Amino acid sequence: GHYIFIGWNERTRQLIRLMAEKFPDTPIVVIDRTEKKILYEDYPVHFIHGDASDEHILLKANIKEAAKVLITANTSKAEKHADSFTILSILTIRGTNKDIPIVAEILSKTYVENALRAGASTIIRSNDFLSTLLFHELSHQVASTPFEDILEILKRKQFSHMPVTKELEHRSFLEASNLLMLQGYLLLGIIRENQYKIHPPADYILQKGDILLAFVSWQRKEI
Amino acid sequence: GHYIFIGWNERTRQLIRLMAEKFPDTPIVVIDRTEKKILYEDYPVHFIHGDASDEHILLKANIKEAAKVLITANTSKAEKHADSFTILSILTIRGTNKDIPIVAEILSKTYVENALRAGASTIIRSNDFLSTLLFHELSHQVASTPFEDILEILKRKQFSHMPVTKELEHRSFLEASNLLMLQGYLLLGIIRENQYKIHPPADYILQKGDILLAFVSWQRKEI
Ligand SMILES: [Ca+2]
Ligand SMILES: [Ca+2]
Repeated sequence: GHYIFIGWNERTRQLIRLMAEKFPDTPIVVIDRTEKKILYEDYPVHFIHGDASDEHILLKANIKEAAKVLITANTSKAEKHADSFTILSILTIRGTNKDIPIVAEILSKTYVENALRAGASTIIRSNDFLSTLLFHELSHQVASTPFEDILEILKRKQFSHMPVTKELEHRSFLEASNLLMLQGYLLLGIIRENQYKIHPPADYILQKGDILLAFVSWQRKEI
Repeated sequence: GHYIFIGWNERTRQLIRLMAEKFPDTPIVVIDRTEKKILYEDYPVHFIHGDASDEHILLKANIKEAAKVLITANTSKAEKHADSFTILSILTIRGTNKDIPIVAEILSKTYVENALRAGASTIIRSNDFLSTLLFHELSHQVASTPFEDILEILKRKQFSHMPVTKELEHRSFLEASNLLMLQGYLLLGIIRENQYKIHPPADYILQKGDILLAFVSWQRKEI
């Protein structure tokens, strides 16, 4: 199935370039209500001018057959207007396709709950992300270049969540790191009862039910 | 010294909350040319209404004694206008204080070079960052929640760069990971000749001149 990107902006343009490079076979449809047209030669996508909270526009984008939808925020508008439009679009999308994953960017924390109620699958709180990143850039106490570091990691690796195996239960974090590294995983931490424990002490003991958080290469197949 | 934040927006508001929580003793001055005033009770900062590319405004913010400057992009303007204003501000800041670290957010890649020429110390390409993150959210092949994962990591850990020690030269990545974990570091990869190698194979051999990239807790002192 194809991907539908709602909102034409620098983020979607860069994303389309990444997609074209890594997954050139995934067709992309872009919907935007201000832009009238885009140059196909520059961006290999199908473009629809219109309002994505309007069911007819979504049907034109063949929403029923699509694989995923991404809604990016219109940052040139006031935050509450951008988020309100995103939530209306989520509602309309969910009304036409009840199973499709919807990734939505929300600018203001106060709209996150309503975006989830409307049917979003994943919320990207981009302001949270950028402010945390700026905090790192301003405050790091040891030598580093946090912005470059994270970007390089994201370009090369993906995150993996997997339940702790019987073999790893009752092992220390250090032992588990060793065993997983030989299988192509770099263990970063665990998620226990929905709480992240990133880089716990070397002697921290894993237990049944823990989720292992690890880096894995993009090439590696689903385990 | 105090920090100067140029631009009043959701990113700087969240950043001020993070700073107030982790480094309450660092005074913050905010400069914005559209906002007339901000509520001090909500945000413990000194506010100056004015144009940060104007030397008089910077002197009012006591730029000569400041420790760091952050310039965030005005996303409500066209990208080139936002970036032009940022570059003009960098030039004026650098003219009044030749040593101060300047962290600047640039929206469009084409302006990065000029921002560096103007005197920026660190450029945050927020669109690069968000598009890469959106790519992860849309494309991850294994179970995970990249946005949450990265945010949780950033909240808990900082990145550290340190030269490979004599003890670690000629060791494998796996051996070095073990030794560093016992010293409170989680080894992520290395930087060799300015190239990142994130999560290399377990038998990858470290060599003299490599920079080790690792997680370390916020509490840990500079080594
Ligand atoms: Ca739109
Ligand atoms: Ca300003």
